[in-house]
Amino acid sequence: MAQKPSIPRGTRDFSPIEVAKRNYIFNIIKSAFQNFGFQPIETPSFENLETLTGKYGEEGDKLIFKILNSGDKVKKADLKALEDGNLARFSNSLSEKALRYDLTVPFARYVVQHQNDITFPFKRYQIQPVWRADRPANGRFREFFQCDADVVGSKSLWQEVEFVQLYDKVFSNLGLNGVTIKINNRKILSGIAEVIGAKDKLIDFTVALDKLDKIGEDGVKNEMLTKGISAEAIEKVQPLFSFSGNLDEKLAQLKGLLSSSEEGMQGISELEFVFDAINVLGLETATLDLDITLARGLNYYTGAIFEVAAPEGVKMGSIGGGGRYDDLTGIFGLKDVSGVGISFGLDRIYLVLEALDLFPETVSDKVDVLCVNFGEKEALASMRLIKVLREAGKSAELFPDNKNMKKQMNYANKRNIPYVIIIGGNELENNTCVVKNMKNGTQLEVPFDEVLTAF
Amino acid sequence: MAQKPSIPRGTRDFSPIEVAKRNYIFNIIKSAFQNFGFQPIETPSFENLETLTGKYGEEGDKLIFKILNSGDKVKKADLKALEDGNLARFSNSLSEKALRYDLTVPFARYVVQHQNDITFPFKRYQIQPVWRADRPANGRFREFFQCDADVVGSKSLWQEVEFVQLYDKVFSNLGLNGVTIKINNRKILSGIAEVIGAKDKLIDFTVALDKLDKIGEDGVKNEMLTKGISAEAIEKVQPLFSFSGNLDEKLAQLKGLLSSSEEGMQGISELEFVFDAINVLGLETATLDLDITLARGLNYYTGAIFEVAAPEGVKMGSIGGGGRYDDLTGIFGLKDVSGVGISFGLDRIYLVLEALDLFPETVSDKVDVLCVNFGEKEALASMRLIKVLREAGKSAELFPDNKNMKKQMNYANKRNIPYVIIIGGNELENNTCVVKNMKNGTQLEVPFDEVLTAF
Repeated sequence: MAQKPSIPRGTRDFSPIEVAKRNYIFNIIKSAFQNFGFQPIETPSFENLETLTGKYGEEGDKLIFKILNSGDKVKKADLKALEDGNLARFSNSLSEKALRYDLTVPFARYVVQHQNDITFPFKRYQIQPVWRADRPANGRFREFFQCDADVVGSKSLWQEVEFVQLYDKVFSNLGLNGVTIKINNRKILSGIAEVIGAKDKLIDFTVALDKLDKIGEDGVKNEMLTKGISAEAIEKVQPLFSFSGNLDEKLAQLKGLLSSSEEGMQGISELEFVFDAINVLGLETATLDLDITLARGLNYYTGAIFEVAAPEGVKMGSIGGGGRYDDLTGIFGLKDVSGVGISFGLDRIYLVLEALDLFPETVSDKVDVLCVNFGEKEALASMRLIKVLREAGKSAELFPDNKNMKKQMNYANKRNIPYVIIIGGNELENNTCVVKNMKNGTQLEVPFDEVLTAF
Repeated sequence: MAQKPSIPRGTRDFSPIEVAKRNYIFNIIKSAFQNFGFQPIETPSFENLETLTGKYGEEGDKLIFKILNSGDKVKKADLKALEDGNLARFSNSLSEKALRYDLTVPFARYVVQHQNDITFPFKRYQIQPVWRADRPANGRFREFFQCDADVVGSKSLWQEVEFVQLYDKVFSNLGLNGVTIKINNRKILSGIAEVIGAKDKLIDFTVALDKLDKIGEDGVKNEMLTKGISAEAIEKVQPLFSFSGNLDEKLAQLKGLLSSSEEGMQGISELEFVFDAINVLGLETATLDLDITLARGLNYYTGAIFEVAAPEGVKMGSIGGGGRYDDLTGIFGLKDVSGVGISFGLDRIYLVLEALDLFPETVSDKVDVLCVNFGEKEALASMRLIKVLREAGKSAELFPDNKNMKKQMNYANKRNIPYVIIIGGNELENNTCVVKNMKNGTQLEVPFDEVLTAF
């Protein structure tokens, strides 16, 4: 009985040309990671359930794909929990493993588990798929790749400098000029909250401030009021709503605002270190900019916060992000290991390159040469030729069946194969072959042994 | 509360050097696939449950990892099935999706789903992980990669020829000389069963014959008897138990044995086609051999059957296998599409290369240059140098912290970094740097702008 084939919602098949384009991006990212001294690791697709639960907040936990226990183990289903409507407990009684939700928690687990084999500071990169039981939407998938680079084991700000360079390098190599690397510092945000006397409301404050672009000054202020931040407090940070000027001017405004906050001033000084270094070292095509609204909605970062915006004119959310987190591995028992890292948003980068027509023509799924097939003897001669071509690095293939010429030429056209080689009876007799250029239609008869000269 | 970190049984973390070695193998396989005109596709990690169930036999079905439905959907648990002890039905009421068990069924699904976008014959390769809820054992994992190349949409035997060449190419490029590509043909096995009048027992017969190496002539005969194949029938194929000689002699024996079976003679003729072609085309380092016991335990192949054995002296099961199957896509409603394909056993190939010390020294996880860190000014100068080195294609990094020299040198040694660059106060003043070769200990002071000359 035939089934109508389909795939689960939120997942994707990738065709040859899509794989080629994705690999083009992956390879540029990988090369840059390696060029900067990062080493690759890979972790299993599924982790023990307890490794993942409780790490992503209540909402995150719900989005973890759990793997159903196999065989007899499902007998342990907690039916009482089902009866009580405690679906989480019921689910957990049926599952011990879950699909990776991100690369950060598995990385923290890896560092702690292998801490005796690792030379710190440990610069690792990891490019693997993750899974989330999110509602599928335009650009939101249930399976997607993350590309992360992190350093753990050092608090040096040179790493922040390096990550700015790394972003610049990758996007320059992708030909995606004009991205903005936005930077902020959690300590500045804390300092602001401290100054306005709303330190316990830091998360509410930053989440609201982060929306300045989207909902405007009044919207942000309303949200802050709703969250219990006083009008006086908001008044104190009025300069932040019209924060502008060049970098030095911005920093000067901030210093005025935060002079009474030690933590805030520390954040400014960290930012200045990064800006000064990048000023000397230069960037290829990206711009580094201070964005005081940048919080990335996460109660997670403790120092620098990064986000990358696509070039102006391209409508797209952030195409990269990251920051410093001071206690990555504490959840697994290894204290005081500071980390800093960044991530590249593959799917969005793909869409941006597509929109700007930036994939090079050489990124393709095509073969270089097709040999047509006129029967057994001719095909054998073609296979000898194909061997020579392949050894010379050309991808080449024989049309497998002795079908009529039109069919074979159609195949070459449909697959965009640039050269077709014809060995028929005459060529076989003369020890030659005809090389046809499919773009301009020209044909060239060359001796069999000199086929490589025809390209 | 700290958790003791671990990973699920049967899964693995891969360290940087392991990732580098695995990628070395992947890249050689990929390059050969592309060189031969195969195109990559990728399919989702999980498929709809009904896409996978019923495709791998009863035992296989049990090894499929199912994904637990999220959220409220678990309310649909079929408690009656649990009560009745029908665990499979209970599990299925909790799951709609399952992890990929192999790459062949998803490929068949892909071909049918995208048949209107595909130009046939379609030569695809796919390198992705698969998951099996198997009992973990030495060399048997619950997550592992498969590397498959298949052609669908043509019955041409040139494809069998090409797959022999492809195996030869990959193993030659891996430096793994002396592998044996064993070939057989299902039609020969069918012919034998026909001749002995045990056509309905073909599977039992081939499964038993496949064990000749392991349990010997008597063992195989006993198993055949147990399965209901008569002593007379076994007597008729006595030559198979001492099947030997060179290829021509073997083929002559087979022709005698199978002269009354049209299907058997067809199988011999197909084999001869492949042998004749390979004879003309030649192989680099592999040997092609007829192995009449090769059945690969599968009631699946309909023509050629392949298996690759590691070089003599290396104890290892098959490191590759494949064959022709005449109705791959029928299960999804697309009839009469013949396919033929091969697979590479990554984990075993890895073990063989390790055992024979065949990984090149250049496969490594190390960076080329470490710049030591003597403080802010020196580090900034080092970062300028590092930028030059990276642009020249060298992977380079700064030790992030201004720690004592010994610590930094220890780091370089532990990570096997071959060159260390030192910029201290003197060098800063003189606009020079000291390049230290960590292998032989020599040091060279060069002008800052000429650092590349020191390598």
